[in-house]
Amino acid sequence: MIQEDRLFPADPTTRSIAKRLYASIRDLPIISPHGHTQASWFVGNEPFPDPATLLVQPDHYIYRMLYSQGVPLEDLEIGAAELKNPRRVWSIFADHYYLFRGTPTRIWLDYCFQQLFGLTVPLSGKTADLYFDTIAEKLHTPEFLPRALYERFRLDVLATTDSPLDSLSDHQAIRDSGWKARILPTFRPDSVVDPDFSGFRQNVTRFGELTGEDTASWKGYLSALRQTRRRFQQLGCTATDHGHLTARTADLSEQEASQLFSQVLAGKAGPHQHELFRAQMLTEMARMSVEDGLVMQIHPGSFRNHNRQLYERFGRDVGADIPMPTTYVEALQPLLSRFGNERGLTIILFTLDETTYSRELAPMAGHYPCLLLGPPWWFHDSPEGMLRFRESTTETAGFYNTAGFNDDTRAFLSIPARHDVARRVDCAYLAKLVAEHRLEEDEAFQVAQDLTSNLVRKAYRL
Amino acid sequence: MIQEDRLFPADPTTRSIAKRLYASIRDLPIISPHGHTQASWFVGNEPFPDPATLLVQPDHYIYRMLYSQGVPLEDLEIGAAELKNPRRVWSIFADHYYLFRGTPTRIWLDYCFQQLFGLTVPLSGKTADLYFDTIAEKLHTPEFLPRALYERFRLDVLATTDSPLDSLSDHQAIRDSGWKARILPTFRPDSVVDPDFSGFRQNVTRFGELTGEDTASWKGYLSALRQTRRRFQQLGCTATDHGHLTARTADLSEQEASQLFSQVLAGKAGPHQHELFRAQMLTEMARMSVEDGLVMQIHPGSFRNHNRQLYERFGRDVGADIPMPTTYVEALQPLLSRFGNERGLTIILFTLDETTYSRELAPMAGHYPCLLLGPPWWFHDSPEGMLRFRESTTETAGFYNTAGFNDDTRAFLSIPARHDVARRVDCAYLAKLVAEHRLEEDEAFQVAQDLTSNLVRKAYRL
Amino acid sequence: MIQEDRLFPADPTTRSIAKRLYASIRDLPIISPHGHTQASWFVGNEPFPDPATLLVQPDHYIYRMLYSQGVPLEDLEIGAAELKNPRRVWSIFADHYYLFRGTPTRIWLDYCFQQLFGLTVPLSGKTADLYFDTIAEKLHTPEFLPRALYERFRLDVLATTDSPLDSLSDHQAIRDSGWKARILPTFRPDSVVDPDFSGFRQNVTRFGELTGEDTASWKGYLSALRQTRRRFQQLGCTATDHGHLTARTADLSEQEASQLFSQVLAGKAGPHQHELFRAQMLTEMARMSVEDGLVMQIHPGSFRNHNRQLYERFGRDVGADIPMPTTYVEALQPLLSRFGNERGLTIILFTLDETTYSRELAPMAGHYPCLLLGPPWWFHDSPEGMLRFRESTTETAGFYNTAGFNDDTRAFLSIPARHDVARRVDCAYLAKLVAEHRLEEDEAFQVAQDLTSNLVRKAYRL
Repeated sequence: MIQEDRLFPADPTTRSIAKRLYASIRDLPIISPHGHTQASWFVGNEPFPDPATLLVQPDHYIYRMLYSQGVPLEDLEIGAAELKNPRRVWSIFADHYYLFRGTPTRIWLDYCFQQLFGLTVPLSGKTADLYFDTIAEKLHTPEFLPRALYERFRLDVLATTDSPLDSLSDHQAIRDSGWKARILPTFRPDSVVDPDFSGFRQNVTRFGELTGEDTASWKGYLSALRQTRRRFQQLGCTATDHGHLTARTADLSEQEASQLFSQVLAGKAGPHQHELFRAQMLTEMARMSVEDGLVMQIHPGSFRNHNRQLYERFGRDVGADIPMPTTYVEALQPLLSRFGNERGLTIILFTLDETTYSRELAPMAGHYPCLLLGPPWWFHDSPEGMLRFRESTTETAGFYNTAGFNDDTRAFLSIPARHDVARRVDCAYLAKLVAEHRLEEDEAFQVAQDLTSNLVRKAYRL
Repeated sequence: MIQEDRLFPADPTTRSIAKRLYASIRDLPIISPHGHTQASWFVGNEPFPDPATLLVQPDHYIYRMLYSQGVPLEDLEIGAAELKNPRRVWSIFADHYYLFRGTPTRIWLDYCFQQLFGLTVPLSGKTADLYFDTIAEKLHTPEFLPRALYERFRLDVLATTDSPLDSLSDHQAIRDSGWKARILPTFRPDSVVDPDFSGFRQNVTRFGELTGEDTASWKGYLSALRQTRRRFQQLGCTATDHGHLTARTADLSEQEASQLFSQVLAGKAGPHQHELFRAQMLTEMARMSVEDGLVMQIHPGSFRNHNRQLYERFGRDVGADIPMPTTYVEALQPLLSRFGNERGLTIILFTLDETTYSRELAPMAGHYPCLLLGPPWWFHDSPEGMLRFRESTTETAGFYNTAGFNDDTRAFLSIPARHDVARRVDCAYLAKLVAEHRLEEDEAFQVAQDLTSNLVRKAYRL
Repeated sequence: MIQEDRLFPADPTTRSIAKRLYASIRDLPIISPHGHTQASWFVGNEPFPDPATLLVQPDHYIYRMLYSQGVPLEDLEIGAAELKNPRRVWSIFADHYYLFRGTPTRIWLDYCFQQLFGLTVPLSGKTADLYFDTIAEKLHTPEFLPRALYERFRLDVLATTDSPLDSLSDHQAIRDSGWKARILPTFRPDSVVDPDFSGFRQNVTRFGELTGEDTASWKGYLSALRQTRRRFQQLGCTATDHGHLTARTADLSEQEASQLFSQVLAGKAGPHQHELFRAQMLTEMARMSVEDGLVMQIHPGSFRNHNRQLYERFGRDVGADIPMPTTYVEALQPLLSRFGNERGLTIILFTLDETTYSRELAPMAGHYPCLLLGPPWWFHDSPEGMLRFRESTTETAGFYNTAGFNDDTRAFLSIPARHDVARRVDCAYLAKLVAEHRLEEDEAFQVAQDLTSNLVRKAYRL
């Protein structure tokens, strides 16, 4: 199902260059500096329960497509703590596998099926049981336990995404176990810095309890954040992450910020003030990053839970997050005016709005010392999306203002497949440059190494 | 002039795959579910008058280009009920045919000249008379009568676009004639639902007279719409079409909607209320579609009659409609919050703003059960436009949330050429996926069939 | 370092077509109708001082990239009237030359190093001195004096960009010298028509002194502009240029305009009135162009001096200009409603927002007789940028509503390289059309000539 030369351009000259480049990086360790796997898997090191629980239920790429074609989420047992009928869920998925033709999900899954489970017949309704049984059986063998897979995947770093309210006890437990994996938390404070996050006010209260700070005061609240960042750093954290609706930043005086915080906390602030508070908090986070060296990641532009009926029935994250037009130029200026020339600061920008690649992001990253471009995100971490990213940013920002690849996934088993796609597409892009004499081949080998390893380590300070 | 391998990638491997795919679909019947041909042609079955009247005068792609290069519209007799000097119009067009180099118009016309009229020398000032005479002569032969062409084109369905104020007597006459063609009306209510449509208030009054409903009341107005939709359905209509400036929708209470309608009808509403009324009417149309099963098409984003001087001299539709930035995410939410999860509803979304393909439309169509993506529209129904559409939407929405091709044309003779271009570009895209091992060749054959026939029939319920 | 076939597609068929096309235009004279070289160079005809002063200091493409990777602008002596240590600046640049991999800067510079200076080892820290010494030596030979280079570059026209406050004495001196080069001024009135331009009010006063008009009155101010345009025309000027933040135009009555001018000049106008004034001035410029035949160029969409700290330390133009989202459809309507159908008017539109190519600019240029599309501008005058421009505009506007290439550069030595890139990319694009049978090869030869020469001369009335 998957071919040796997949994702390389058909032109023979270009393909042969791409193959040479790829051969030089295919076996490099995987660095995964941003994602949504669970540290807990590696504490207990229990087998993953079954194919549907592992591959279908957590993957919104999969169930959003099925839902779009009329499969009820109930039939897929989305939201269930434990699947009642995993074989039936798997069978529905298999029946609809043709829907994924032409999508990256298909590439990731075929890779996983073939490389990990040795399956070589295509998945369909007919082969659903064969797949289910083969995968289910293997999942209970020692080689498929979470820690074994971590090592088999040649993971060098695996970053999770964590709330400031999380004790990080799983990360601590991994460390305490003596297992030498590098599984690192990422500081994602949305739940305590975004007034529209569900439960925001209670979260801030709880945050005070956890940190022993008076989070009802601006000063105490900031202290709690500082303290928690340190706590994360002690467990290896090197980065923060911020998922606001917009990229807006602000640079209020301490007094203005303090008053705004009080209003927000008192529930007396309207939507504009909420937005302003989020904006100010990005600048506060930048200030703390200048102090403590944590790398900032900004992921704006996702309209969350667009489908209100589903949201009411199933809650957050059921696949109805839709990108919005996003602008960065005016939005980031307050933060950049304050900290944009700080040599010690690194901010990695992401976008769901591809129009910003050549218009805003590449020109900004090609100027400001603190800015780097994160890889194509979410709907765009696909072969065409990755190619558009390189084609739209390289000529202005070069390669060296980019930060390598993120798999950004909940789907642990897809990690090698995703990195493999990224490596192949980068090599395909580089091969085109070489074939068109826009880059020397010896330089392309160096760039391929840089994109796969060196730029990631440097960007994320690993 | 036209070559066997046109529009296929130059790489030999990819081209040979494209050719195989194309051979499997080139002879499939044409389904034309959205367009602007006239049912009346097929009633009288009179010969088309002459080349200029048939090919130049109705085609705004042609005269907008000529106008942009300094040809006065008067010289082309635009707006004349009957051409006084069709040979002269044709000659001006022929003199300027070089302007169309690199445009789809050129591809469509060369196909039509060569395949239909057997012309093999290029069109230019020198060959203008040869062309005029050859075409004029053939147009008066039996094989070039409208019904003969319908059959020769292997049309399976041909949908027109019709006002609720139209009696559809031409459609009725075709049915009554016993001729077995499938020429279907489409319900396009802009003239009675858009307060900015010229003559809106008189239209609503006349709508009341035609339907016998009290269209001065909200209830009667809605009844008139319902009744007229049923009338259209009785003549085979399966779809509605909506050409608002924006994609905005609203979900007002019955009382609010009723009051707004009164204000609008009394001429007391300002631009914001007009926009709100259009927004509400999209939701009303969706509600009726849930009831009666008509498929909704939404075509937003065209700034109509941008050139005011021309509009004052020549009226609507003289080629000065310009696309606007369009957003869908917030705009469609009121409608989708109400009806977005209805299994029985189909809404086909179009855009003139290509930035929405990957950012908004593919993510929405890849989630909501009711949404499908219409093909690249208007300025974008070109080889590059079609390719960008597939490259920007497939990875997120797949193929199966798209609705096949529309020719969307007034130019009857260009229909086979337009479908041929669409089929070739789809095959070129699929061939690239196959050549890069992103899709199996056997699957590509299936997808090619689906894009050409199955998805169109399913989307439009034909 | 540079290869014969650079920038041509790898596919052998397509490449061979591209080579044939390119061979037919590679030696055509260079027409440079828009740029930022200095007429003064050609008056004194003094040697350029040294490699760093010539190639690094004036080129914001270069130092913005170095700055983005942490090189202080002070180390590059940006802003210094004379470089204290050009060899050190050159050495820093050489050390970081790898940053430009994949960028057009790299292509331009390698071309210049190899073609002009005969350097064939790659530039790096190791070869920095070899480069510096080789270039420095050659710069002091007769063949590298400005006038010799002008002739060696086969320049046919070289337009500069000039303020209405400039005496144009350098242009006069070139004429007086009897040297037969065609170095033409361009009328760029931002300093006296943009209220936000630094020193605007003093500029207007000085403008009155220079012209002998009462520039405190609207009438006198317009007379001063008219008079100065005539003065420019007497020295060969054929075009104006306008660099506002947006493309907004207005069409005020004379009384409204006059009042607005008074308010603006009195310093009593706010940002909205400033914007309105700029908008009105574009329409005034169009009115004067209808009278005197100067071609208008509009370059909107650059957020100037985004990095406030750098602006405060180094002033304007230190590489922190960032593109903004730009819209044209509503913005240009007031001007176009007034003058859009004037046969004698030419307006060349540029953009930094590539989303407008297919959505707005091509549809407008493909309709309005006065509009032409300028080439990809600034960050987009790169191989991918040029290709996106052709792919996004040709199908709607054709080739004949475009205006050929601009090098738009301060970097005199890069002019041949930039035109060479443009010619190669156009040939690559045309070759693809030919290989895919979308254009006949004989037509492609004609189009290549037109894009390189004929359309430029026609657009700029040269």
